[in-house]
Amino acid sequence: MKTDSFHPPLRTLMGPGPSDVHPRILEAMSRPTIGHLDPAFVEMMEEVKGLLQYAFQTDNPLTMPVSAPGSAGMETCFVNLVEPGEKVIVCQNGVFGGRMKENVERCGATPVMVLDEWGKAVDPAKLEQALEEHPDASVVAFVHAETSTGAQSDAETLTELAHRHGCLVIVDAVTSLGGSEIQVDGWDIDAIYSGTQKCLSCTPGLSPISFNERALEKVRQRKTKVQSWFLDLNLVMGYWGGNAKRSYHHTAPVNALYGLHEALVMLKEEGLENAWKRHYDNHRKLRAGLERLGLRFIVPEDQRLPQLNAVTIPDGVDDAEVRARLLDEYHLEIGAGLGDLAGKVWRIGLMGHSSNPGNIALCLAALEDVLNS
Amino acid sequence: MKTDSFHPPLRTLMGPGPSDVHPRILEAMSRPTIGHLDPAFVEMMEEVKGLLQYAFQTDNPLTMPVSAPGSAGMETCFVNLVEPGEKVIVCQNGVFGGRMKENVERCGATPVMVLDEWGKAVDPAKLEQALEEHPDASVVAFVHAETSTGAQSDAETLTELAHRHGCLVIVDAVTSLGGSEIQVDGWDIDAIYSGTQKCLSCTPGLSPISFNERALEKVRQRKTKVQSWFLDLNLVMGYWGGNAKRSYHHTAPVNALYGLHEALVMLKEEGLENAWKRHYDNHRKLRAGLERLGLRFIVPEDQRLPQLNAVTIPDGVDDAEVRARLLDEYHLEIGAGLGDLAGKVWRIGLMGHSSNPGNIALCLAALEDVLNS
Repeated sequence: MKTDSFHPPLRTLMGPGPSDVHPRILEAMSRPTIGHLDPAFVEMMEEVKGLLQYAFQTDNPLTMPVSAPGSAGMETCFVNLVEPGEKVIVCQNGVFGGRMKENVERCGATPVMVLDEWGKAVDPAKLEQALEEHPDASVVAFVHAETSTGAQSDAETLTELAHRHGCLVIVDAVTSLGGSEIQVDGWDIDAIYSGTQKCLSCTPGLSPISFNERALEKVRQRKTKVQSWFLDLNLVMGYWGGNAKRSYHHTAPVNALYGLHEALVMLKEEGLENAWKRHYDNHRKLRAGLERLGLRFIVPEDQRLPQLNAVTIPDGVDDAEVRARLLDEYHLEIGAGLGDLAGKVWRIGLMGHSSNPGNIALCLAALEDVLNS
Repeated sequence: MKTDSFHPPLRTLMGPGPSDVHPRILEAMSRPTIGHLDPAFVEMMEEVKGLLQYAFQTDNPLTMPVSAPGSAGMETCFVNLVEPGEKVIVCQNGVFGGRMKENVERCGATPVMVLDEWGKAVDPAKLEQALEEHPDASVVAFVHAETSTGAQSDAETLTELAHRHGCLVIVDAVTSLGGSEIQVDGWDIDAIYSGTQKCLSCTPGLSPISFNERALEKVRQRKTKVQSWFLDLNLVMGYWGGNAKRSYHHTAPVNALYGLHEALVMLKEEGLENAWKRHYDNHRKLRAGLERLGLRFIVPEDQRLPQLNAVTIPDGVDDAEVRARLLDEYHLEIGAGLGDLAGKVWRIGLMGHSSNPGNIALCLAALEDVLNS
């Protein structure tokens, strides 16, 4: 059986990620591969670190992309910062808080769950209560931007509460980085991870992380070895660290990093605040249109992520059929519901390069057509 | 500070990987990104699985690329197949056996080391002795093609010995896949992992693996949860599995998979046996030239990998200076020694697309010039 080269259909990506990747980034990824220890590559790695510091708004020296998707970035935070026997408070208001719980358990630690309704932000009062009830907790983990619901939590307040009770924080910023405000230093976040395929508009496969000195000190003081060799920051830093002599750890995904570099150069060119504003302005345009179509948001207005718009599927409408028609007739991808929200909501992404008026017009026109015919 | 787009220098890659990536593969990677649950993408995933089965010479349904580099493929094998308290025999004859030991320990298991000299194949007699001395061992792990030395071990014999003593095998084929013979089904290998940036000539970042039914049964029968959420095959298979309804696990690295697909299509076009023969024929050409230059191989002739040629650095020659001059004057990358062999050997790769007469001529001429001037 002969297999031919794969030529993907052209899509407009307005789901929960990947978002549309700008041709500049695709072109960057196709540049000739060089060695992962080549001096020219090492110099580019330094630039990637600097550009990520800008995106995260931090001076943390340990700011770098993990060589695997966002889930591995999450795991990097947990396996390095959580030791067996510890107690970790996990705020869950969607799918990804549940994944955090899994991570805590697989580290041999005990999760204490703070549950909020899916579609709502994490309630700081509930976190405070949990912190008071569990003075032996060492880490608080929460999702800044819940990709499964489109709810945005107040990372600054949650971090401050955690610190007041002597806990480190682990923050999921997979969907927020580059799309809405994050101030890693300003909010004093200890450990944060993100993904490349959302508001950075890069291809999926890398997970930017940043650890502050307090978090790193905990990694250095561990009593047990990090359970993952691949994600052990003590080792990874030998390669990504700032020292002149880099030691081989694993082979970096060279061309994927070309792409991330270009995506971050584009973010710098636009300006971070401008990118946040663009995401917000386009969200308002989309919102007006969706409301005109009678679609209702599941997240209260003041807790909405501009880049991820979850709306309730109207009664009597066939979820799968609508999405299939959007894909077939308009080559438009929107996201299905995830977990408890499967079949109940659509998730419309306006992330990175996908966040533009043309996409909004297409999405609204296509939805109107498909819902009414 | 403004950061510009990164334009890599043009190199000829004759180190231990990444190897030169064919323009067809680079071009494939720059095709427009589509969603990781798009029906067209899911179809391509099925093709990747089928093509990997061909490359591994197996019918194992669980044959797929892990969404991270080779080290994560190694970790996937260990964290899924090794439970705390088990005893694992690790054959070490170079750097990567040492990494296997690290993996065993981080799984809470006990490694039993079978040590061979770096630059020699694993000695089956030593493995047999260890198996007899440790009847309670459950897994044997070894490296088929040691990238740090260029030694090739007899995977078929080692696997047979392990099975005779009731052990599963984990085989590192990072540098062999596509470059020298591997028969996963023919040799009855239980679990194997590789990388994309060696003899498949793809960019680094993915790790093809294959598990047979015996290995999968052990994963299903585990008493403890797999310590890595990201690498837990029980979950990963929900996405990569053959079932019609795929469930989201993590976001696949879409464009990297376009590249792997194209690399595998090219391997199929060439024919696996032809690729093995090409690697061997080119190795003989290079060998003749290196011997003419007075360079001596560190691996005995009958144990040499054709795709990775490690030679002793002549007395009085400055290792770093030679490699720097090759890079600066000829844009040619060859590999330094790793671990105990640092400063003592050069590793000259003839992998995938890099394995061609033009590269050999360049390498020999450049080495001759730099060593004599």
